[in-house]
Amino acid sequence: REDLASLHEQHPGIQPVLAIVQVGLNVMQICLPSEFTEDEVGELLRLNGDPGVHGVFLHLPPSSLSSRVLNSIQPEKDVDGRSDVNVGRLVCGGLTAGFTPPAASAVVEFLARHDTCLEGKTVLMIGWEGPLGVALQCLMQKNGMLVLNSQWSSANLQNQVQRLLPPCGPLCLSPFRWEVSADIYVVSNQNVVRSSSLWVRQQQYLPWKLRTLKLQPLSPVPSDIEISRSQTPKAIDQLAQEIGLLPEELEAYGRTKAKVRLSLLDRLKEQPDGKYVLVAGITPTPLGEGKSTVTIGLVQALSAHLKLNSVACLRQPSQGPTFGVKGGAAGGGYAQVIPMEEFNLHLTGDIHAITAANNLVAAAIDARILHESTQSDKALYNRLVPSVNGMRRFSPIQLARLHRLGISKSDPGALTPEEAKTFVRLDLDPEKVTWQRVIDTNDRFLRKITVGQANTEKGHSRQTQFDIAVASEIMAILALSDGLADMKQRLGRMVVGSSRSGQPVTADDLGVTGALAVLMKDAIKPTLMQTLEGTPVFVHAGPFANIAHGNSSVLADKLALKLVGEDGYVVTEAGFGADIGMEKFFNIKCRASGLKPNVVVLVATVRALKMHGGGPNVSAGAPLPKEYIMENLKLVADGCSNLKKQIQIAHLFGVPVVVALNVFQTDTQAEIDLVCRIAEKTGATAAVPCHHWSRGGRGSVDLAHAVKEAARQKNNFQFLYDLQMPIHEKIRTIAQKVYGAEDIDLSPEAQAKIEYYTQQGYNTLPICMAKTHLSLSHMPEKKGVPTGFVLPIRDVRASIGAGFIYPLVGSMSTMPGLPTRPCFYDIDLDPVTEEITGLF
Amino acid sequence: REDLASLHEQHPGIQPVLAIVQVGLNVMQICLPSEFTEDEVGELLRLNGDPGVHGVFLHLPPSSLSSRVLNSIQPEKDVDGRSDVNVGRLVCGGLTAGFTPPAASAVVEFLARHDTCLEGKTVLMIGWEGPLGVALQCLMQKNGMLVLNSQWSSANLQNQVQRLLPPCGPLCLSPFRWEVSADIYVVSNQNVVRSSSLWVRQQQYLPWKLRTLKLQPLSPVPSDIEISRSQTPKAIDQLAQEIGLLPEELEAYGRTKAKVRLSLLDRLKEQPDGKYVLVAGITPTPLGEGKSTVTIGLVQALSAHLKLNSVACLRQPSQGPTFGVKGGAAGGGYAQVIPMEEFNLHLTGDIHAITAANNLVAAAIDARILHESTQSDKALYNRLVPSVNGMRRFSPIQLARLHRLGISKSDPGALTPEEAKTFVRLDLDPEKVTWQRVIDTNDRFLRKITVGQANTEKGHSRQTQFDIAVASEIMAILALSDGLADMKQRLGRMVVGSSRSGQPVTADDLGVTGALAVLMKDAIKPTLMQTLEGTPVFVHAGPFANIAHGNSSVLADKLALKLVGEDGYVVTEAGFGADIGMEKFFNIKCRASGLKPNVVVLVATVRALKMHGGGPNVSAGAPLPKEYIMENLKLVADGCSNLKKQIQIAHLFGVPVVVALNVFQTDTQAEIDLVCRIAEKTGATAAVPCHHWSRGGRGSVDLAHAVKEAARQKNNFQFLYDLQMPIHEKIRTIAQKVYGAEDIDLSPEAQAKIEYYTQQGYNTLPICMAKTHLSLSHMPEKKGVPTGFVLPIRDVRASIGAGFIYPLVGSMSTMPGLPTRPCFYDIDLDPVTEEITGLF
Repeated sequence: REDLASLHEQHPGIQPVLAIVQVGLNVMQICLPSEFTEDEVGELLRLNGDPGVHGVFLHLPPSSLSSRVLNSIQPEKDVDGRSDVNVGRLVCGGLTAGFTPPAASAVVEFLARHDTCLEGKTVLMIGWEGPLGVALQCLMQKNGMLVLNSQWSSANLQNQVQRLLPPCGPLCLSPFRWEVSADIYVVSNQNVVRSSSLWVRQQQYLPWKLRTLKLQPLSPVPSDIEISRSQTPKAIDQLAQEIGLLPEELEAYGRTKAKVRLSLLDRLKEQPDGKYVLVAGITPTPLGEGKSTVTIGLVQALSAHLKLNSVACLRQPSQGPTFGVKGGAAGGGYAQVIPMEEFNLHLTGDIHAITAANNLVAAAIDARILHESTQSDKALYNRLVPSVNGMRRFSPIQLARLHRLGISKSDPGALTPEEAKTFVRLDLDPEKVTWQRVIDTNDRFLRKITVGQANTEKGHSRQTQFDIAVASEIMAILALSDGLADMKQRLGRMVVGSSRSGQPVTADDLGVTGALAVLMKDAIKPTLMQTLEGTPVFVHAGPFANIAHGNSSVLADKLALKLVGEDGYVVTEAGFGADIGMEKFFNIKCRASGLKPNVVVLVATVRALKMHGGGPNVSAGAPLPKEYIMENLKLVADGCSNLKKQIQIAHLFGVPVVVALNVFQTDTQAEIDLVCRIAEKTGATAAVPCHHWSRGGRGSVDLAHAVKEAARQKNNFQFLYDLQMPIHEKIRTIAQKVYGAEDIDLSPEAQAKIEYYTQQGYNTLPICMAKTHLSLSHMPEKKGVPTGFVLPIRDVRASIGAGFIYPLVGSMSTMPGLPTRPCFYDIDLDPVTEEITGLF
Repeated sequence: REDLASLHEQHPGIQPVLAIVQVGLNVMQICLPSEFTEDEVGELLRLNGDPGVHGVFLHLPPSSLSSRVLNSIQPEKDVDGRSDVNVGRLVCGGLTAGFTPPAASAVVEFLARHDTCLEGKTVLMIGWEGPLGVALQCLMQKNGMLVLNSQWSSANLQNQVQRLLPPCGPLCLSPFRWEVSADIYVVSNQNVVRSSSLWVRQQQYLPWKLRTLKLQPLSPVPSDIEISRSQTPKAIDQLAQEIGLLPEELEAYGRTKAKVRLSLLDRLKEQPDGKYVLVAGITPTPLGEGKSTVTIGLVQALSAHLKLNSVACLRQPSQGPTFGVKGGAAGGGYAQVIPMEEFNLHLTGDIHAITAANNLVAAAIDARILHESTQSDKALYNRLVPSVNGMRRFSPIQLARLHRLGISKSDPGALTPEEAKTFVRLDLDPEKVTWQRVIDTNDRFLRKITVGQANTEKGHSRQTQFDIAVASEIMAILALSDGLADMKQRLGRMVVGSSRSGQPVTADDLGVTGALAVLMKDAIKPTLMQTLEGTPVFVHAGPFANIAHGNSSVLADKLALKLVGEDGYVVTEAGFGADIGMEKFFNIKCRASGLKPNVVVLVATVRALKMHGGGPNVSAGAPLPKEYIMENLKLVADGCSNLKKQIQIAHLFGVPVVVALNVFQTDTQAEIDLVCRIAEKTGATAAVPCHHWSRGGRGSVDLAHAVKEAARQKNNFQFLYDLQMPIHEKIRTIAQKVYGAEDIDLSPEAQAKIEYYTQQGYNTLPICMAKTHLSLSHMPEKKGVPTGFVLPIRDVRASIGAGFIYPLVGSMSTMPGLPTRPCFYDIDLDPVTEEITGLF
């Protein structure tokens, strides 16, 4: 009772629950039929998976307590201690390894009450069998008693007993004298308290006992797929257990991937968050910087080498480019997520789910336009609100539309003809449909298409386009949602176009919200994978970084921050350069999540800096110009202007910066030193050369230490602009403070849209700039730090569901193409070994 | 040694392998570093998952044998018997439940050699600890010995020993006198032999110990989703274990679905197949027949009630219609696959994989046409065979193309300009591209579209279409492949169009085969689910039943036939009426698989027969005409013509028929009796009314008995036509013998295509008729048994990868649309409970 009281005091929220399973008595709704058979074992399996049950006690007739039944209870809930595992633990290990049968403990306790010292006493146990007898014998031996065990049937029992009779007489126990009593229940409750305490301990921060995978880096570094293939990943449920996930929180997808249930957030809600680290980069060049590689290398160093709990949160890459030209997004060299082919292909199907949801909306739009055009108001109404078994009723989503329309009626018969017309006619203007279809394939011929040319569509053809799936607004929603309810609301708010009278038409108006949520119900759960060193990685969502915000999901970050605990680290990556990805991370993602970042890691390479400093262009296939291979301090120094500017941008938000310099073999020490010196002079907390690509986590231990140091600094995180500012002011703030523009220039179209969105009440949304990532300006060819430019805003669009306004600076391609020789020429699968070759 | 010899004799293929893990000695490549730490436990976990290892013996220093290390070995491979579970099993259960530590067995054996009778002897064990001591004590007790266990430190050890000294002196053992010896190895090897024997036994047919889920059917029968939701499915790994799958053969996808690895086929290759049952139907009507429901009801009856191993093999339904109008495909009422929402939605992503693969081919086609049109031969050649680090080489798939072109050169520098031109130019005729894009959404506006209208595509626009994803040839390939190698070859053979000179162009020519195989590598594994009664179901592939063959996969059937064993049953379903689905099952699927069906179950309903007998049309929403609610023996009798004809078609193939009459509440006994009488008179082995919809498997026990009876009959299975017959003769045979047509009428287009295919050598492929499913004829409105018609063949097409020619009889819609009120209006997801409502 005392233990229970103290548990209550320390954790008022925990109410230990004991499920007692017994025949004929209904406790916790678990009343089995009295002709209980082993098939009923399903009830027990259900209790195993119920996190609200901390212990299971079987009060069943002995005939029902078969080995199969006893062993069907999860050992951690077998508070009666009669499963093989618990008995094994008791006899092999000790009193704390498993649960001791309460009846056995009670017997020993009873003996101790009547005898000051058990040590050295001789005990003859006769006729004890099964788990209880074994446990009792073990307990008495552990108390220093000399135990003799005999069967009733033993031939010379009489002799034995007589011979063994010591002067003071032996304690002679038989099971027939012992029945379950109140005393024994008390002990059983102790076990439940202990089980609950163990459960509580599981919820708390503990350094993980991570079984890391060893790396033996080769030189020269093999291809990414070869490195990935040469490492055997841990079973994903093993990794999950190591980082404190409960089995019921995991949904495995094969051996190496698993979705993590959002219930985890609730279980760990009292847990303080870990440190939140963002990896961003200088302005990208064709030479690559390696942000993903740094992200993975950093968590490998933190987890596997500094033994600090840490998780990397990555975006799921689009599958389309995998078969085109792009490299993998799983990191590279000895800093990768494995198996990289799983990461780069279907993963757990989230992008497929987004594609399905997106295209259901598209199909609903065109079908609705067609049906409205061919039917009278009355016919439409009769079809939309049909009589089923003589009853007509609105579905909940229809009632919601009526409510938005200001019609407060719920009887389908009560609408006036005018009201019915308003209700049935979305009156979508085909010219003003903004919703596009998507596909996760690089299919350039779908960039502009005409649909509806079959006779069955009666001339309703119109021009439209397919985007790559990750450009779907639904992807941005997935990344910004903080739960199922929030995601569903966002899906319903998505604006798909406007009516002929200029009113926005939403997914809710189409009646499709519930179906979208159903399609996305699994996609909302982040996917757990691992690095080459066996440390955890979450992969979740991957919105485009121009027309959307280019960051992985809020949910994955939140789960990870709870999982690592307060001394742990969550490292996530923002797309493109810091001026885009990081700015959106702060102003859009952090605003949505309420999370505050502790450190920015800014990634640069000597090569890329040289290009910013005026180095020559490079072209695929051609040998690299000598400027990038030989020492050239002038180019490096000039190019550092871009690095300096990006550091300053991070400081605008009040977050400390650590510069990670991804070292290449051709970089000279003088070049490396120069970059670090300039970075630190600009105010970076540290600037560290990294070698994870060639050496794994061990090569980034210095970076990990620097990040740990920086995370301790005082943090003055702040947003760049207030949401209440007018739209054009918010755009101007970003253009001037982040990009370094003189001003912005709004086209008349952009101006009109801003007025329209303001009038619709969308003016308090944050801004998501759709700008080239190849320059701080809108001119891709301008490297370094362009100045003296005015940023032209061609048009302004809105993703109302995702929750941002996106101004278009120049034209954005939302559908990549395939080159003459797509990389699929090299990709192959060995049908016998099932090994993949040629994937990066 | 004797046991081993006898195992060898009985199973020459089995070579028991013992992996001995010891420091410093390299056995089986498992030599751990001498500074062995607990982290090395990964090696052991790997052995657990290796089906080639039957036992693991840890020869490690005692300091390394921590509880964590000992317990990391899977109990079934812990031949040293020192894990908690094995010790627990030994002390709780008996000698056969787990493995006994060989050293303990050896001690007892040694004692027995020196003492004729152990029974009743007293033993004092001093200083024994850990698993070995516990096991030894247990063994001696089981031999009737009286065992005393004491510690060296015990205060009055001296007294005890003296007091216990019997006249003949005790056996006094201490662990310090016992070392691992050769004798003990022998015993250890016995355990490996036993472990191998258990493994062999696992491979053999055994009646499953299936934990069935109980049904408590309600009346009236609730909606499908309500019934599905009210049953808690077993964990899928639990079900897998019950039906004899090894953990390493399973890839779970969440809690209720798992992919099954094809390695199972190899493990069970010696196992005889079970009985193979096909469920087909009468000609479909809008009233529905319930083939899927019969399929599920039948296996529920066979497995859960007759206790016969049985598996249902179902098609995966397209997700598109789920949100349109169609009912679910998971069965219905109390005969369903659960969770039905998982079945009807993404499942394990196979259709998404097909979509991705199909559309990669499409993107490759258009991109290639564009690139060929804008580049010189030389530029194309330089891009297709680029110099990488100064080296040019052909990729394997390019070498294969050269080989097909008759160019036997492998040095890219050696091709003549003419050869290079032939190599680089597929010269696809845009007008003759037959490959379509696909999407798994009912999107009618994609039935005819124009693609390539963006400026970037330089005027190469062309008209094309999207089909629903299940209409992709890749789906048909998935269904017909018998392994990864076969699938890859079929993918490569797919003809996507023809060149301007009339040559077929294949996926191999596009260089995309390897990438397609990579995209499909998981889709090829069938998905395991369960029925409402907890019996196993395979879901795999779902090709269209008109332009393709409408049957689930060959691989799922083959896996299932091995799993159920020779006394078991595999029940699979063919799409549409027996004239289409069953005919294709026999002539296409069975030809591809080499499997022979044992029984056809032909499904009919009184209502549908009434419609075939001339009953009035029905329309959705309107009340059912009274003919279908009141007794009408005349309509039933007339409609049985269709049933008779379908029975006769099955008999053409020499397979016995059982008629399953799906009973509705309004059917009268006289109607039911009439159908059964006519069916049996026509030669059906039996005709049985079924009640699985309202009562689950219990309602179809009679059908199960009838199927079991029919499966015992002699079977004269034969194909309907010989592949060597000319194409038009094969078509005529089907039209006349199956459909009852007078003759066929080939259009000039069809005629020309037949000549073209014959010239290309495709004339020995089987025929896959694309005909309406609503009539035995080509006229959907003709119910019953139409006669006197000539079947018009409008066109002939070919799926070379799938391996059939498909003549078009009338026009087939390959893209469904959405109605005015799609069923998504009713579909919703509760964001708190995550419960889905409104899905069927």
